[in-house]
Amino acid sequence: MNNLKIPHRGFSSKEFETRVERARKIMHKHRLDALLVSSPPNVRYFTGFDSQFWESPTRPWFVVVPLEGDPVAVIPEIGAPEMALTWMKDIRTWPAPVPEDDGISLLKSTIESVAKRYGRIGAEMGREMVVRMPVSDLLRLRDSLSSEIADGTPCLWEIRMVKTAAEINHIHHICQIASDAYEALPSQISIGESEREIARKLRIDIARRGADATPFLPVISGPGGVPQIVCGPHDRIVQEGDVLFIDTGSTFDGYFCDFDRNYAIGNICDEARRVHEALWLATEAGIAAAVPGATTDDVFRAMSKIIEEAGAIGNNVGRLGHGLGLQLTEPPSHRLGDGTIIVENMVLTIEPGMEYAPGKMIVHEENIAITRDGSRLLTNRAPREMPVIR
Amino acid sequence: MNNLKIPHRGFSSKEFETRVERARKIMHKHRLDALLVSSPPNVRYFTGFDSQFWESPTRPWFVVVPLEGDPVAVIPEIGAPEMALTWMKDIRTWPAPVPEDDGISLLKSTIESVAKRYGRIGAEMGREMVVRMPVSDLLRLRDSLSSEIADGTPCLWEIRMVKTAAEINHIHHICQIASDAYEALPSQISIGESEREIARKLRIDIARRGADATPFLPVISGPGGVPQIVCGPHDRIVQEGDVLFIDTGSTFDGYFCDFDRNYAIGNICDEARRVHEALWLATEAGIAAAVPGATTDDVFRAMSKIIEEAGAIGNNVGRLGHGLGLQLTEPPSHRLGDGTIIVENMVLTIEPGMEYAPGKMIVHEENIAITRDGSRLLTNRAPREMPVIR
Repeated sequence: MNNLKIPHRGFSSKEFETRVERARKIMHKHRLDALLVSSPPNVRYFTGFDSQFWESPTRPWFVVVPLEGDPVAVIPEIGAPEMALTWMKDIRTWPAPVPEDDGISLLKSTIESVAKRYGRIGAEMGREMVVRMPVSDLLRLRDSLSSEIADGTPCLWEIRMVKTAAEINHIHHICQIASDAYEALPSQISIGESEREIARKLRIDIARRGADATPFLPVISGPGGVPQIVCGPHDRIVQEGDVLFIDTGSTFDGYFCDFDRNYAIGNICDEARRVHEALWLATEAGIAAAVPGATTDDVFRAMSKIIEEAGAIGNNVGRLGHGLGLQLTEPPSHRLGDGTIIVENMVLTIEPGMEYAPGKMIVHEENIAITRDGSRLLTNRAPREMPVIR
Repeated sequence: MNNLKIPHRGFSSKEFETRVERARKIMHKHRLDALLVSSPPNVRYFTGFDSQFWESPTRPWFVVVPLEGDPVAVIPEIGAPEMALTWMKDIRTWPAPVPEDDGISLLKSTIESVAKRYGRIGAEMGREMVVRMPVSDLLRLRDSLSSEIADGTPCLWEIRMVKTAAEINHIHHICQIASDAYEALPSQISIGESEREIARKLRIDIARRGADATPFLPVISGPGGVPQIVCGPHDRIVQEGDVLFIDTGSTFDGYFCDFDRNYAIGNICDEARRVHEALWLATEAGIAAAVPGATTDDVFRAMSKIIEEAGAIGNNVGRLGHGLGLQLTEPPSHRLGDGTIIVENMVLTIEPGMEYAPGKMIVHEENIAITRDGSRLLTNRAPREMPVIR
């Protein structure tokens, strides 16, 4: 049972000042005069602004983080009262939606007022991020600015990949909520229920335990393993001999957990048991390999060796874990060629998986925070043998 | 109580064939050889593919809908088993994530194989849509293609703004689930609870009644009205004299409802009562004005007249309703200058709101489907007087 204190929601002004101060050092390295962000995780990272209204793609929102001077929020009027509650001092608004000019001229004048040192503004142009504004507006802005719009994602990921202590506390909290819900699940479900009904029960239980939302909750079952791990639930009834695979990205105050669990429905085949054990050991190896100074390639290899020896015939996931935080998935990736050097305060998933027979996959996943000389589990470690549901 | 039959999940191949056939007619009008889509609502609209894995922005997904020949899914291997369950016949995959070339060369060869008639490919470049891929990849693709990448959003919105009967059934179902939950709420909450606790109870009840997800559920309270309508819940305790404002975008099988309700906490001031009545009448006027042949400007004016007469001092929302469907908000907008002609089978929100004193807003909202000669409510009409919570 999770007896941790619930973290305070939101973060102090000091926390945001520290984030921006560190961001500026990294911006210098990337030769950027400012960052221009529009996506929910990046806006939230720098401002603390939270809203479920991101679900409406009608109005764009912008934050400009300059090398010098206060960050500026350039946002629709509808969001001004709430943004005023954050640490942000400079808030500029327009009466969106205005299709002819939805904030672009206001954003342009904001960016033009930033001191020019490198002549480059970093935007969310690259990997694992999405520009939350019409691309045609971004291109028009780019063509009208006196500075260059450059790809800011390498800079943004260098900033966000290393978490603050407060961020890690948030992730730990949601990991504990989901751990508790996973552990309580066998007593709540039984053979003969559908994947969809099981997902609904778990979704409700995770909410009851204090999660804010559960945007990701695939529930997938199959005899001895599952054909894929990212879609579902379906109306399939779980049956004797099935492996029931459940993954969740639930959130607390904006921060995600991302880990799965496997359950045996009655008696499962020996082969599935053997593969589960191998993956449990691969997880141990992945956790042990994820230490400061190692690379994501090293972590991949530590797991891959065990998976190969266990007789993997494939894995359509393309990697064996990744970063997480304000997004369900973030850089880095545990894969050959990723080459990211692991440092203290990264938060990572360790996610070995394998297809051991056609259409039969088993995948494990835990979340860890990197410490000065190793790591600590944020999730309750999965049991070495699958819990049985009867 | 909602006694409607639960709609069948997913749609028939015939439905998708009809959608694509209609889309092609509209593509001709816009002189596009193909549509290139990457965002969840558009991918789902054309393929039926559903996944909560959209929450992970690491891997891009693409669908190409050509004027001639089958639509093509160009997707990460991790999604292939599920895409194979849809009506799609042509599914091409790559082992994502591969940062060096995450599907772009495969997508390029797919687009180049499309018959050239207009030399233009329509992408999600414009309003109320987001390109779910790195913009730098989109620009690289654009520069390497022999066809022009044009803004496909006017075409896509012309396609999606008019719903099929099956789509309207889905929206009706989720509207009924949320209506039932709103009606049951007063018996479940009481003065002295926090906004957050009320949101949690309602979230759980909506899930229990059969919604798949609730991505949007602001719960906001304030004396006689609320300062804004898109952020929250907070930890504020609801108190005697408050108006409790709740909005929800919950989903069934991908389709959204989007409507709000207001509750009186104990005795509220006469002014709030008067404004609530005026907005109820403005909603009636908005519904009456939303008929085939009218414009969104007409619908705006019908409501605005009553709101102005009731003494509105402002409204930071920027419009008085909009379309909905696979997104919480879609075109058109009820605002002056929008100019969209309303036609049969549009699904619209009617959303009059006003600030009647500084920091005191009240907003109403219903969802309707346009019929041949008028409209029908998809929501249970809000009571003329606010339900009281004691």
